[in-house]
Parts: sequence; structure tokens; C-alpha cells
Amino acid sequence: MKTRKPRLIKKHSKTAGLPPGTLVYVGEKEGQPVRITYMDYDEKSFQEKQVSAVEECFPFKTTPTVTWINVDGIHNVKLVETLGTEYDLHPLVLEDILNTGQRPKFEELENYIFIVLKMLSYSDEKQAVEAEQVSLVLGRTFVISFQERLGDVFEQVRERIRNAKGKIRKMGPDYLCYALMDAVVDNYFAILEKLAERIESMEEELVAEPDEHTLAKIHSMKREMITLRKSIWPLRELVSAMDRSESKLIKEGTGVYLRDVYDHTIQIIDTVESFRDMVSGMLDIYLSSISNKMNAVMKVLTIIATIFIPLTFLAGIYGMNFKYMPEIDWPWSYVVFWVVIIIVTLLMVSYFRRKKWL
Amino acid sequence: MKTRKPRLIKKHSKTAGLPPGTLVYVGEKEGQPVRITYMDYDEKSFQEKQVSAVEECFPFKTTPTVTWINVDGIHNVKLVETLGTEYDLHPLVLEDILNTGQRPKFEELENYIFIVLKMLSYSDEKQAVEAEQVSLVLGRTFVISFQERLGDVFEQVRERIRNAKGKIRKMGPDYLCYALMDAVVDNYFAILEKLAERIESMEEELVAEPDEHTLAKIHSMKREMITLRKSIWPLRELVSAMDRSESKLIKEGTGVYLRDVYDHTIQIIDTVESFRDMVSGMLDIYLSSISNKMNAVMKVLTIIATIFIPLTFLAGIYGMNFKYMPEIDWPWSYVVFWVVIIIVTLLMVSYFRRKKWL
Amino acid sequence: MKTRKPRLIKKHSKTAGLPPGTLVYVGEKEGQPVRITYMDYDEKSFQEKQVSAVEECFPFKTTPTVTWINVDGIHNVKLVETLGTEYDLHPLVLEDILNTGQRPKFEELENYIFIVLKMLSYSDEKQAVEAEQVSLVLGRTFVISFQERLGDVFEQVRERIRNAKGKIRKMGPDYLCYALMDAVVDNYFAILEKLAERIESMEEELVAEPDEHTLAKIHSMKREMITLRKSIWPLRELVSAMDRSESKLIKEGTGVYLRDVYDHTIQIIDTVESFRDMVSGMLDIYLSSISNKMNAVMKVLTIIATIFIPLTFLAGIYGMNFKYMPEIDWPWSYVVFWVVIIIVTLLMVSYFRRKKWL
Amino acid sequence: MKTRKPRLIKKHSKTAGLPPGTLVYVGEKEGQPVRITYMDYDEKSFQEKQVSAVEECFPFKTTPTVTWINVDGIHNVKLVETLGTEYDLHPLVLEDILNTGQRPKFEELENYIFIVLKMLSYSDEKQAVEAEQVSLVLGRTFVISFQERLGDVFEQVRERIRNAKGKIRKMGPDYLCYALMDAVVDNYFAILEKLAERIESMEEELVAEPDEHTLAKIHSMKREMITLRKSIWPLRELVSAMDRSESKLIKEGTGVYLRDVYDHTIQIIDTVESFRDMVSGMLDIYLSSISNKMNAVMKVLTIIATIFIPLTFLAGIYGMNFKYMPEIDWPWSYVVFWVVIIIVTLLMVSYFRRKKWL
Amino acid sequence: MKTRKPRLIKKHSKTAGLPPGTLVYVGEKEGQPVRITYMDYDEKSFQEKQVSAVEECFPFKTTPTVTWINVDGIHNVKLVETLGTEYDLHPLVLEDILNTGQRPKFEELENYIFIVLKMLSYSDEKQAVEAEQVSLVLGRTFVISFQERLGDVFEQVRERIRNAKGKIRKMGPDYLCYALMDAVVDNYFAILEKLAERIESMEEELVAEPDEHTLAKIHSMKREMITLRKSIWPLRELVSAMDRSESKLIKEGTGVYLRDVYDHTIQIIDTVESFRDMVSGMLDIYLSSISNKMNAVMKVLTIIATIFIPLTFLAGIYGMNFKYMPEIDWPWSYVVFWVVIIIVTLLMVSYFRRKKWL
Repeated sequence: MKTRKPRLIKKHSKTAGLPPGTLVYVGEKEGQPVRITYMDYDEKSFQEKQVSAVEECFPFKTTPTVTWINVDGIHNVKLVETLGTEYDLHPLVLEDILNTGQRPKFEELENYIFIVLKMLSYSDEKQAVEAEQVSLVLGRTFVISFQERLGDVFEQVRERIRNAKGKIRKMGPDYLCYALMDAVVDNYFAILEKLAERIESMEEELVAEPDEHTLAKIHSMKREMITLRKSIWPLRELVSAMDRSESKLIKEGTGVYLRDVYDHTIQIIDTVESFRDMVSGMLDIYLSSISNKMNAVMKVLTIIATIFIPLTFLAGIYGMNFKYMPEIDWPWSYVVFWVVIIIVTLLMVSYFRRKKWL
Repeated sequence: MKTRKPRLIKKHSKTAGLPPGTLVYVGEKEGQPVRITYMDYDEKSFQEKQVSAVEECFPFKTTPTVTWINVDGIHNVKLVETLGTEYDLHPLVLEDILNTGQRPKFEELENYIFIVLKMLSYSDEKQAVEAEQVSLVLGRTFVISFQERLGDVFEQVRERIRNAKGKIRKMGPDYLCYALMDAVVDNYFAILEKLAERIESMEEELVAEPDEHTLAKIHSMKREMITLRKSIWPLRELVSAMDRSESKLIKEGTGVYLRDVYDHTIQIIDTVESFRDMVSGMLDIYLSSISNKMNAVMKVLTIIATIFIPLTFLAGIYGMNFKYMPEIDWPWSYVVFWVVIIIVTLLMVSYFRRKKWL
Repeated sequence: MKTRKPRLIKKHSKTAGLPPGTLVYVGEKEGQPVRITYMDYDEKSFQEKQVSAVEECFPFKTTPTVTWINVDGIHNVKLVETLGTEYDLHPLVLEDILNTGQRPKFEELENYIFIVLKMLSYSDEKQAVEAEQVSLVLGRTFVISFQERLGDVFEQVRERIRNAKGKIRKMGPDYLCYALMDAVVDNYFAILEKLAERIESMEEELVAEPDEHTLAKIHSMKREMITLRKSIWPLRELVSAMDRSESKLIKEGTGVYLRDVYDHTIQIIDTVESFRDMVSGMLDIYLSSISNKMNAVMKVLTIIATIFIPLTFLAGIYGMNFKYMPEIDWPWSYVVFWVVIIIVTLLMVSYFRRKKWL
Repeated sequence: MKTRKPRLIKKHSKTAGLPPGTLVYVGEKEGQPVRITYMDYDEKSFQEKQVSAVEECFPFKTTPTVTWINVDGIHNVKLVETLGTEYDLHPLVLEDILNTGQRPKFEELENYIFIVLKMLSYSDEKQAVEAEQVSLVLGRTFVISFQERLGDVFEQVRERIRNAKGKIRKMGPDYLCYALMDAVVDNYFAILEKLAERIESMEEELVAEPDEHTLAKIHSMKREMITLRKSIWPLRELVSAMDRSESKLIKEGTGVYLRDVYDHTIQIIDTVESFRDMVSGMLDIYLSSISNKMNAVMKVLTIIATIFIPLTFLAGIYGMNFKYMPEIDWPWSYVVFWVVIIIVTLLMVSYFRRKKWL
Repeated sequence: MKTRKPRLIKKHSKTAGLPPGTLVYVGEKEGQPVRITYMDYDEKSFQEKQVSAVEECFPFKTTPTVTWINVDGIHNVKLVETLGTEYDLHPLVLEDILNTGQRPKFEELENYIFIVLKMLSYSDEKQAVEAEQVSLVLGRTFVISFQERLGDVFEQVRERIRNAKGKIRKMGPDYLCYALMDAVVDNYFAILEKLAERIESMEEELVAEPDEHTLAKIHSMKREMITLRKSIWPLRELVSAMDRSESKLIKEGTGVYLRDVYDHTIQIIDTVESFRDMVSGMLDIYLSSISNKMNAVMKVLTIIATIFIPLTFLAGIYGMNFKYMPEIDWPWSYVVFWVVIIIVTLLMVSYFRRKKWL
């Protein structure tokens, strides 16, 4: 049980009281090494490389080509700091990159734009949605992305750059930034589909065979909804702020794409809200199915007791030892007794039939 | 069960990671062919035709007459693309037309207006509300409408054009566009009436004879309310944005009609909200009727047990085999025993009467 | 049952697909004839008449005196059309007048103002609130009011005009229009008082003697609250829009009266909301009173069973036929048996006393 | 019961249909006489008097000193009218003063400001919060206050004026008006403290010894919360509107005091909201404590029945009269029987122990 | 019980009716003495001292260095007054400092800014969150902080000043003020972590072994959420107002830090809201687990009763004393009787198996 549950909040308190901009990584320090890759391209040229030292990326800073530097694994605080110094990132921005409990947000700074997103993945093993923080820095000729772990949803974007598919190679870093955000948001649909499947199978289970685990499952689904909401609601604001931004870093032609992302975000929020409604409805069904079951149990008890208790009383009567009980000695009384018992039983049964208990 | 339930969300993830504007149809690909029809009219002339190739519609593009091109069945991606290229539609707009999980929306582009609506229909067979996406493109001299399937709510509009009924033949494409939206919205009232009937029959059932299926029905009604809300709430925004729009494509005289549609939208929202309140109320009634039933069962059990358990004890007493039990040998004790039993029973019954259990 | 329930929605679908402005009456066509009356007055003169043909009112159109034309019974579509043509009413306005499922609204048109209100009445017979649509058209020198049925809340206003009571004869048609709205709103207080009485009597019933009908009553009260809300919430907007309106038809001095109506509207909304809270509270009380009753039943059952089941067992022991049962033959054992039974019973009773079950 | 409950709404309908500004007092007409007092002061002079005729106050109207006229008991309609005429109050304002079902409000008129407040008092006898309407009219050199009954929360303000304590004697009528509002709002804290005490004692009762009256108490507390909310929520708006007002009657220096009152209002609203949350929580506890009790009853019943029913069956077996029952004649069978019974009982008890039922 | 519960509201009524600005301390007057410390620093110099008389701090008022005066224990009203007079604080500000039931707020006055915060601490002993009011006054060269008790969350800030860590020594009093607010907000994360731990352990308890105390714990957690919300929600407004403020006391460079605090505030609010959702979910689980338990008890009762009541009836039959009962005399009837009983029992058990009751 213990291991399945993601901690409710990140250990933010580690940084409490430290001067602002102090760089402390608050996530789990996984054993895996940090991986840095870059892609540098314009309409004609393209190169891609996994580098061992971040400094290898610095030459591209001044070239007019679009450079995308991707850092997987931000537990190497030193590295983040080196990158930050080279690209003039504000200490508070670096702190936010490391502090993975951030809320999705959009910030416009003097020479660059800073975006925090939540990339979700569905762990089949843990049957739970997991969130990973993705920080994007959009500069005049570059995009830097920071991720907590290896593995992401950007593979298709990379393919499009490599194969010059779509317009991506003809556009600037703002379009790349949009493409990354779009990939993150599109991935939410996949997560929602997983949840939709679980909701549907749960609904069938509810009708067919609810048991004690059903409630726990409903509860865990509710928790995931809460996680989703926390990731998705701020996104709406973020995308809308980015669209309204007057920064020179975002070219006019990108607006229409951002509005597309915005529409997707609204669609996702709508879907999450209706899932919430459905999950709440399930709880009602579950509770009333418990009541129905108890009702069924009670009916069985009542039928049995109501039929046999009076009969037992009758049998008890003729088990008495009074000297003077005329019926005792009559020859047909035993037969009459059985007839009475059968008639009483039939009356009871027909009464229960009328009451719809049988 | 499986077949009755509409999937909770469209398979949007099919398009995840693809470049924006990649045209993929996300709905079910039904076997039926695509049908393209056009109507071309002005105050005096009128022609209507079902064409086999979309190119037959292109000549009307430059004529000053109003042209309405209607496409039933958008699973033919190629066709949509051809149309899009001819009429200069933005790739993202084409993507939205095919991606039938869209939210109703209103978008103003340079040379045309793009509107997404949800056309609802009530399937008596599945006892459920079904939604079909209708996309409208309003240009300077044309309206193009895209539907997922054959069959729509526009027949009356066609009649009005054919017979020059009302003002429709005297007005421009913006009025036609309004007429189509109005037909979609008016149809919502029909859906609401179906739901009202179901709610009323459910309320009678609730009072008369609630059973285990009642809850499932209430739950399914709740789900349909959620579907309805998702289709209708954004509509309000849409119509209001269209009314406030300063696009030259919408003439001033059309505003009063749009406000009429807006009023209808608000009326529909009000009605859906009060239906929701009623359905919630039903759940309370259902749950308390279960409680009442259980109460009734308990009372029967209690009455039977409370009357016969003490009597059985009494009978048990005189079934004992003690040597020295003076009552056993008295001649009247059996009669006295019955008298006592009858008195005890009567006392009990009158007690239950007083308690209102009988 | 059937007849008592007002239909949940008006058959709006009758007009679906028709050209806008097509005049169709959607309410019940009652047998009663249409009644048209007019009042024409200024500070000095006054005349009032019930006319048989609407054309008799037309001469007043151009006179500077204030004319109030009241139409009871709008099922005569022809008549409404004639009036509409004479007074230049927009077809959509006429449609709204006939379409009695309208939401209260305020619309400013070029030469007149159009207001839709809901006049409520409490039917003692049906124990329900009924709504009737009142449409007001305010022109430069006239007010036209349309009602669905005979009988209204305007009698006092008529009296004030007849007797030149208050300022009404000195003021223009905007003041008359205000006076009619005020009468409708004041009437809501009467409805609320009826409801308050029902709520109070229900609360007493709940404490004293709740039964199965209580729930149905609470539910029907909830439904009436929903009806009320639908009539009243839009009213607030309506009055506020009218106050803010810059139409020349509403003179400056009328603003203070409109704000008074606005205050009343808010007061009514507040009251309806607190009624809703109370009715919800009642449901909680009802449900917990069911639980309490079940608890009481359970206690009786438990007390009886707990006392007599062990005693019956004891009696059963000495009803056994074992050859070697020493107690059977002791002379005092029957007496001892009774003593034991009495002691056990007393112990049980004192246990239940301590548990507060008795 | 009847007498304890305050009527849900004031008989507003008394005034229905009357011309606006018709003066009708809607409250209870208590026997006590009307009391009129005035205080007239500036920094140096001060006089205070209880007058028998309202005309005695009129000379102060033109003096530059601050005059506070206080009227206790507004059922004397004539008197209110006289005052109104002298001070040029609008008929609708006078109507609002008499119509004690008003909502707290702030109205700016040409020469004066009109404020309606609810003064609350806690009646220990009725265990309920009671509201009294206080209307304030703030003119250039005077404040007139109207109250429904003798007895108010202004005694401290009077003391400050009499003894020239604080700045009150140095300030104008707007400060006096603020001081009165502040007294009313400060008094709310006292009411909240009373409620807090009741909530706390209720919570202890809930844990210790809930009974059938607990629910009624929770319900009545909920009702009082509703009353409080109705009095307090509009206050926020009122004070904020007053602070933002640009009337010349409110001097700039008074703003900081109004903001102080505003802060208090927010604090009170916060507190009332958290009280509401707590009271809702209590209901949950109460309902689950009923369930727990029923559970306890059920367990006792089940334990008794489960132990004795099988034993009674066993005893029944050996009470049978079959000719050939070998055990009957064995000499040790009675002893063995008891041993079996004791073992069965012990097994059962240990089973219940394991299940935590004992 | 009594001592554990923090009073629901502060005794605000103590100050009711007093002139505004009357200084009364409303908290508990603890025995401990007041402690006053100051820190005076600029980039190069630094001094820190605990003073016995507040007057020792006054010389720093005119120096250009940053001075932080911290007062622990505001029950010494005289002292607060002296400070207030020296630093020209408005009487209402002083009243707010002493009146510890304040809501967090931000007020801009002529020469200084006044901020009220709630510093939370988690008392392990009382298992409850406790709030302490911290008032900050930010002037041109000084910050004055008032606390209710010794002990705070500012130790790290002091360290940073002492050791010139970070930028604090290079910045002005607005940065110091930010640092103090940041420390208070960061501390909320620690509180949330404590609560998260309690929620998680509660969830495990709920699944494993819910008992009567569980509900009380859930209820007390709900109360703490209410306390938290009351402290945190206004904070958002506060920080946002401070960021938007155009006061010259807040330099432009501080804005980015305030926005950082703002982000944290939003994060905290999000977390508290999702905790609330979880705690509500727990109540549902608890209630349904009670129902499940009752169901289990009922099943045991029903199984026992259903099996043994018919068998007891059978045994009763053959305990009757009728003269003519043929079975009685048959030699195998006793054996047949047992066989019948065993078959009936097996049938019952298999029936319960099918019903999933066993």
C-alpha cells in the first residue's frame, strides 16, 4: 500500500527560510545519470547530438539557427546552475526549475519566457497517473527544456524536426515551444482515455458485482481527478496569458496555434469535470447498492423468521405436558396439525408475494 | 450493455504528436458514402443539386448568389482537404472539422467565420441522446456545412429556401448561417421534451414502484444531462461572441436574430439546470424509499418476533419435565394458558397500533 | 396525479424549423374568449372601455394621452398580429409574446421597449405555484400588455388610475409600465408568504408525525422553488438593465422607482434562497427521523429477543427427555427455575436501562 | 413551538398594489409608546433631550452643529411622515423605513444618504438571534436614526458624545454615522461569540450524548446562520459602496474608518462561513452516530441470537419423543450435553472477540 | 477536551462600542515578559541587540541603515503605543496590531505600509494547527514586526542578515519585509506536510481499522482545514495587492520576489483545496464502511437464524405429545431426522454460498 501512494505533496519545506534563488532539488534523487541532448536546425541544416558536458551546447547561443537543448534529470544542480549562468536565467527561475512541486505557470522575463508544465504519464503497474515537471525556457534563438526523468512525449516532435515534416523547420523557437506544449497537452487526451476505460469498467463492475474494494477504487479515482485538475486548470490561464502576451519572442503567426492549444485545454477541462460528475454518481450507486443488499438480507431473515417462529410456537403448544389437553388424545390431531401448518405457510408465502419480497 | 454506452471521449489521441493541421478523422468510419449537395439562390433564382464530385460546386465561389454547400460524412478526408484548399481554409480549421470531439466554438478568421456546433438527436432505440458535430464555414457569398452522418435537422430550412418562404431568399449567407444555427438550437427543445417525458414517467415510477433498475435509469439520465451541458454551455458564449463580432460578414440586421438564438440558448440552459435539480431530487427520494422499505420489513419482523417469542417461551415452560409442577395437573390450566396467550397477543397488537406499526 | 403536475416545459418544438417570426401560440388553447380593454388618461381626462375589436384602440395611437391596452388571452394569433402591424412590432417580438415559455427579459428596440415577465399565482386547489407570461410593450404614448388568461394582479393599478390616486395620472407611460412591473413583483411576496406558511407547517409535521407523504411534499416544494427561481433570477437582470437603459422612453424620474423594484427583487431572491436552504435542511431531518424510527424498531426487537431467547433455551433444557437429569426430580427445582428466570430478566432490563434503550 | 419561531418573512404583501411611497408599517405594533430623543453638539457645546413632539427637533435643522435625532418605534406612521416632510425625505425612503423587511442597503440621494442596517440581538429566552431594522439618514448637519423598538447598541456612542471621549465631538455627522454603523457591526461579534458558545457546547453534546433533540438544535442553528447571512452579506456591499461614494456628505478623513468597518464585516462573514461549515459537519457526525448506535444494537441482538439459537435447537433435539434415541438412556449424556453447550458458547464468544464485536 | 479546543473566535466584543483606535489587547495575557530586539544593518555594518526599553531603538529612525525592530508579546499595550507614537502609526493600525483576530491584510498609508499575517505552527502535543498574528510595518528605513509570543519562523532570516548570506544585506527594508513574509509562507509548506502525513495515516486507518474515534479525527481535521483556509485565502489578495501597489516604499526589483511568494500562495491554496476534497472523500468511505460492517453483522445473524430456526421447528414437531404420531415409534426415525437436518443445512449453506454471503 505504502509504496503505491504518491506522496501528497513535495517536500517543499526543504527550502524553507533559505535565501530566494538558493538551488535545492526537492524530488527523488534517482540513480540514473543526467542526459543532455541538443538539436540545432533551420530550414536547410540540421544537427542532433547527445553531449556529455553542457558546455558543448554553448556555441549555438549566438548562431541564428534554432537550438533546442533538452536536459533529462535535473538532480544535477550544478549543471542547471551552469546553464542558468550562461543563458542569464534569474535565480528564482532556476529555483522553480528544481522545485518540482511548481504549479503550471507562464512568466515573461526580460530576455526570455519561462514556462512550467506538468507532463502526465499513466503507470499501468501502479494504476495511477504520475506527473513530471517540464520547464521550458524560450529565448530569441533557443528553447531549453528541463525534465525530471528520462522518457517523454516529445519523440514525435523530434521526428518532425529530423524529417522536416510539417512547418516546424521553417519556423522559429516560439513554434518549437508551441510544439512541445502541444505534445504535452495532446498526451493528456491519452491519459483521459485510460481513465475513461477505467470509469467504464468500474461502471460495469458496479452494476454486476460491487464489493468492498469498489469503494477504494472509486476513492483512488477521485484522487487522480484531483491530481489532474491541479495540473490542468492552471494550464488554461497559462496558454491564455501566452496568447495575450506582447513579448517579441512570440511571433504573430504563432497565435493561431496557441489558440488551438487553448481549445484543447478547455476540452480537457470539460472532460475532467464530467468525469468528476460521473465518479460522484458512482459513489451514490455504490452506497445504494449496499443498502439494496442489506435489504435483501433483511428480507430473507424476515421471511424465514416470520414463517417458522409462529410454527415453532404451535409445535411448542403441543409439547406441553398439561394433564388435560383434549387435542392430544384425538386420533386425527397430528394430521390436522400438519394441515394447519401448511395452510399458515401458504398464507405467509402469498403475503410475501403480494409485498414483492419473494 | 456494452453497445448502448457511447464512449466517454473521442479517440483524440490518434492525432497526438502529429504536426498541427494534419488531417485525421477521429470518428467511426461508417460504410455509407459521402453525400455532397449544394443550393444556390438569390431573391429570384434558385438551384439545388446533389453532386458526385466536390469540384462541381466550385464555380459558385465567385458568383454573387448565396451558395450553401452541405457535406454529409466527413470520413472522406481527401474531399475535405480539396474543399479546404479551394476555399482557403486554415489547416487548423480543417483539423477541427475532422476532429469531431470539438467543443462548440466561434472563430473569426480573415476571410471567413468558422463555427462548430453539436447537433443532438434522441435515439429511441438506445434511449439516449446522441451528438453529431456540425461545422459551419461562413464566407462572403457561401456557407459550407460539414456533418458526420446523413440525416439532419435542416430540412425545414431547405424547404424555406426552395419555396422562398420567409425572408431567407432575400437575405445573405449570414442569415442562412443563422437559420442553420437556429434549427440546431430549436431541435434542442425537442430533445428537452423527450427528457421531460422521461423525467415525468420516472417520477411516477419512483412513487409507484421503485426497483433496482430505477437507480441505473437515474444514473443514465444524469449522464445525458452531462452530455447536454457539454454541448449547450459553450453555445451561449458562441452566440454571444458572434453577436458582438464586428466582422463584416455579419450584417447589422442579423443581430436581432442572433439575440433571439441567444435567448433560446439561455432558456435551454435554464431548463437543463432545473432538470438536473430534479434528477438529483429523485436520487434522494429513491434512497429514502429504500430506507422506508427496509423499515417496513423490519417492522414485520419485529411484530412477528415480539409476539411469538414470548409465547414460545411460555409454551416451553409447560413442556418441561420437572416432577413437581403444580399447574400441570390442574384441570383448567390448559384453558387458562390459551386465555393468557390471547390476552398477551392483544396487548402487543394494541401496543403496535399505538406505535403506528400496524 | 397526472393532472396536478404542470408540464416541465412548454411545447416549444412546435415552432422548430419555422422561419423566425412565424406566429404560433404554444400554450393551451382555452375555450374562453379573448378580452381587450383600454384605459386612456392624462392628468385631467380618463376613459376606460372593453372593446370587441382591437381596431377600436387604434385612434389613441396618435393622441398625447397615455393609453394602456390590455389583451387577456393571446391564443387569438390573428389579433396579436393586427396589433403588431399597427404598432410596428418586430415579428420576433410577436413570436416571443405568443411563445409563453419565454424567460423574463428586457429588450430595447427602436421605437419601443419590450418586457417579458412571469406573473405567479398560487392555486390553493392544486397546492402549487402557477406562472403566466405577461408581455409589456412600452411606446412613447402607450403601454400594451398581453396576458395568457383572464385574471391578473393589476386591479389595484386600475383603481389608482380610475381614482387618480398617487402620482400615476400625472406621469407618463414609463411610470405605468413600472407600476405594472411593481404589481407583479409585489405579488411575489404574497406567493412567498404562502410558501412560508407551507414550510412552517411542514416543519411542525416533520417534528410531530413524518410519514411517507412528507417526502413527496418536500420534493414538490423543491420543484416549486425551481419554478420560482426560473421566474425570479432573470428579473434582477431585467430591472437592472432597464434602470441602466438610456432609452428616451424611460424618463429620469422613473429611475428611483425602478431601483425600488430592484431592491424588492433582490429581497425576493434572498428569501427564495433561504427557503431552499430550509427545504434542504428538512430533507436531512426527514432522513434522520427515518433512521431514528428504524432504530426504535430495532431496539424493541432486540430487547424482546435478548430477554426471551435465553429463557426459552433454559425452558428447552428442562424439556429434554434424558433419563438421568438430577434436577428434574428435586422438589424445589421448578421454583428455583422461576427465580432464576426473574433474576436474569431483571439483570437484562437493568442492562438496557444503563444503555438507555428503555 | 409556535411562539418561538420568528415568522419566515415580514408581511410585505400588506403594501402590495398600493402606490409607491404609501406609508404602511409592516411590523408588529407593540403597545409601547414612541420615544424621540435628540443630541446636538459641536466641539464645545452639547445638549441632549427626550422630546414629546418631533417638532421640537426642527430648530436644529439649520444650525451648523451636529444633530442626532433618534426615533425608537416607527409604528407611529404619522410621526415618520412629519419628519420626512420637514427633512425632505423621498416617499420611497420613508416607505423603506417603515417596511422593516428591507435588506441592508446604501442609497445616495440628492441632499442626504440613506442607510438600512440590521441590528441583531440574542434573546437568551428564545435561544435565537433577533433582527431589528435601523435606518439612518445622513444629511449635511444631522443624522436621523429610526429603530423598531426601545433598546439598542448605541449607548457607548452616546457616552462618548456626552463625555467628549475620542474624536467624535470634533467630527461631523458622517463620523457619527460611522460610529453608529461601527456599533452595530461590533455588536455582531458579540452575537457570534454567543453562537460560538452554542456550537462548542453542541459539539461536546454530540460526542457525549446525542439524542433526538440534537438534530432539532442543529437545524435551528442552521436557520440562525441563514438569518445572519441575510443580514451580513449585503453589509459588505453597503460599506464598500459607502467608501467608494463620492458624496460630499462623507469627508475624506472618514474613509479610513469605513475601511476599518469593512475589514470587520469581512471578518464576520468569514466567521459565519466557517460556522456554517462546522454546523454541516455536525450533521454528518450526528447521522453517523445514529448509524453507530444502530450498529451496536444489531451486534447485541446478533450475539444473543447467534449463541442461543443453536443451543435451543440442541435442547429441542433431546426434547423429542422418538422411541429409539440411544443418547437418551446413556447415564452421562446430560453432563456431555452441558459440556458441548459450554464449548460451543466459548467458541462463539472467541469468534465475536476476533471480529471485535465484544 | 475543553483545553484542547482553540476558541472558535477571539473575544473581539471586548472592544465593542469603544472609540476607534482604543488600544485593548484581546488575546490571552501570558505571564512571559515582552522581548524587544533590533537589527540594524547595511551592506557593510551590522548590529543586533535585545533592549529593555523600546526607546533604545529610536535613534535608528533617522539613520539611512535598515532597522528591523521585533516585538515579541504585544500584551504590553503601553509599549505598542509608545512605538506607535514615535513612528507616527495611525490609531486604527495600532488597534489592529493588538486585536489579534485580524484577517491577513495589506494597507497602504501615507508614510508606511501595514501588513497583517498569520504565522502557523503545528502543536504536536495538541495535534492541532495554531495561528499567531504577525503585524509588519514597513517604513522608508525600517521594518517593525509585532508577534504575540516568543518563538517564530524568522531565525533563518536573522542568520542571513548576520552572515550577509544572499542579497539581504544589499537590499532595502522592502526586501527584508519580503523575506519575513516568505519565511511565514514557506512555513505553511511544513504545516501542509504535517497534515499530509496525518491524512495518509488516516487513510490507512480507514481501510484497516475504522472505529468511533475515526470520525472525530476526520471532523477535527476538517476544522483545521477551515482554520488554514481562513489564514491563507486572504494572503493571496494581500500579496497580489502588494505587488500591484505603486507605493514608493516597494522598489521595482522586489516585484519578482513578491510574484514568487504569490506563486507559493497559490500552490498552498491548491494543496489545501485538494486536502479538503480528500477529507470529504474520507467521510464517505467511513460511512460506507459502517454500512459494510452492519451488513456483515446482519449476514451472520441471518445465516444463523435461517439455518437453525427451521431446524428448531422440526425438533419442536417431534417434541409434541400427540398420542397418534406414527413416526415416533418407527425405529429409524431418529436417524432419518438427523439425515434430514444435515441435508437441509447443506442446502442452506450452498444457497448462502451462491448469494456470496459466506
